[in-house]
Amino acid sequence: MVKPLVSGKFVALSGGVGGAKLVRGLADCLAPSQLTVVANTADDFDYWGLRICPDLDSITYALADLNDEQRGWGLRDESWVTLEAMRRLDDQQWFQLGDRDLASHLFRTQALRAGQSLTAVTRQLAQRLGSATRLLPMTEQHVATRVFTDIGELEFQQYFVREQCRPAVERVEFAGIDQAELNPEAIAALADPALRGIIICPSNPFLSIDPILSLRGCREAIAEAGVPVVAVSPIISGRAVKGPAAKMMRELNIPSRAAAVASYYGELLDGFIIDEHDNEQCSEIVRMGVECRAAQSMMSDLNTKVQLAAATLSLIEELA
Amino acid sequence: MVKPLVSGKFVALSGGVGGAKLVRGLADCLAPSQLTVVANTADDFDYWGLRICPDLDSITYALADLNDEQRGWGLRDESWVTLEAMRRLDDQQWFQLGDRDLASHLFRTQALRAGQSLTAVTRQLAQRLGSATRLLPMTEQHVATRVFTDIGELEFQQYFVREQCRPAVERVEFAGIDQAELNPEAIAALADPALRGIIICPSNPFLSIDPILSLRGCREAIAEAGVPVVAVSPIISGRAVKGPAAKMMRELNIPSRAAAVASYYGELLDGFIIDEHDNEQCSEIVRMGVECRAAQSMMSDLNTKVQLAAATLSLIEELA
Repeated sequence: MVKPLVSGKFVALSGGVGGAKLVRGLADCLAPSQLTVVANTADDFDYWGLRICPDLDSITYALADLNDEQRGWGLRDESWVTLEAMRRLDDQQWFQLGDRDLASHLFRTQALRAGQSLTAVTRQLAQRLGSATRLLPMTEQHVATRVFTDIGELEFQQYFVREQCRPAVERVEFAGIDQAELNPEAIAALADPALRGIIICPSNPFLSIDPILSLRGCREAIAEAGVPVVAVSPIISGRAVKGPAAKMMRELNIPSRAAAVASYYGELLDGFIIDEHDNEQCSEIVRMGVECRAAQSMMSDLNTKVQLAAATLSLIEELA
Repeated sequence: MVKPLVSGKFVALSGGVGGAKLVRGLADCLAPSQLTVVANTADDFDYWGLRICPDLDSITYALADLNDEQRGWGLRDESWVTLEAMRRLDDQQWFQLGDRDLASHLFRTQALRAGQSLTAVTRQLAQRLGSATRLLPMTEQHVATRVFTDIGELEFQQYFVREQCRPAVERVEFAGIDQAELNPEAIAALADPALRGIIICPSNPFLSIDPILSLRGCREAIAEAGVPVVAVSPIISGRAVKGPAAKMMRELNIPSRAAAVASYYGELLDGFIIDEHDNEQCSEIVRMGVECRAAQSMMSDLNTKVQLAAATLSLIEELA
């Protein structure tokens, strides 16, 4: 635990892997009491009869330093014995659940069936795996991303995993979003007088951040917080580090550029962090009324995660 | 597949491990179309939110030659990665589920939730794991063994696994038995004109066979079948090969002898197979009006399983 770089509290909105990396960096810059992470749950789905929450788990595993950096998802030292046995029973296995990871899904599913909230289960999983950072599902209600593509309507994981993001995306819908509201603990965190800033992690704007922002009460709570909102670009040199963000942008007729992400978030933003390779886009972003800083944003190890987190917190301080 | 030793059809009533060994032997003596196995399901329970059917699985694994003979239960080449991960999440793990075994429970639980019958799921599991023998759960209804002991009332697996059969048994009840009826496919098998005999496997009479016999319609169907009923003693030299049968007999003031098992089954039986070490009890059993044969009944390998199965089928032929 390094000494907190800044005082006050922060809320980070995050999707899975990319967002989880910045969250891991933030956890080194801030004391546990300073950070609340609100994670997308619109990717959640049922598989093998279990509730799978990919983004919550990616963040939990990253915070507990249990994630597999090489593979890019899931747990380190993972094995696949149950998956192999499932293949013998049913060869239509399109999603990979590892043996260690499986425990999280079994634990969560059982607790949810027993009537616990996803917020409570997520807290228990984090605590028992060794993370002290507060991580919240964006909502307790069921929201499901549906991707409308050139091959038809797909559930998120069908698009993302089974079809490996190959279909061209025409639009995205979040089923259930009208009945869902931002997690009350997230609302409270945004209303905390000690709040100093809101960070939008380098996650897919359409698939990971939009669900959170689309929740009833979310944009209002962010506006009322009256603190700087800083996003970190998930696009570096016109490409997504991981996932389909850049491809989706082209399919949605948005240039796959960092500046286009800033433009997409629009008036929500006070600041934007772009990669140093995209430095030339800064002036364009500033013209949108958004402060812009370039940083080394490829998070390949803990050091680069912490540095990018520190740069993000610095921009928030500047904007205060 | 060896040539069938006998013609006609047979129904075997079985519990888990001990019964599964004889069933494996029977499967070598008979063609798949000749044998129907009816398994106790009163030990079934939910763990990790999954439906666990220990006796059905023991028989399925034994028939598919996937069972672990050394350990005495579960699958060969098993690993325990998920269990270890679950221990990190919740240290109160008193039941052991292996990674390969887990696939069966996941597959079954999902199918049952989707509305499939336990009979249908059991058939699919057997087929996909490579067993052609027809294996039926004794009933589609929920029956749960409750063991009343000197430390109070226990659910079966609490008694059997968590307490390792240490408490003294006062009596046993099968919750739900009055609302449960023998599997219609088992009723049909017992009513089949080609039926030549009924085999009661060397399973615990109180915990494994009594639930089956207590089902509505079971004793009637056996009586109406009008074929020889032969039981194989689970007691050898006064001891159970595995499990608490002998200990329970003493606690229930029944001598822990093979002859006492024959006496317990009473008028149901036409024939009884005892171990050659208990040969001197044969005349006593014959005086009960039950034919008795001694055989090598310790089933330590496939050969001894097949020989005991053949001895059982021979006694049925003699009694016909």
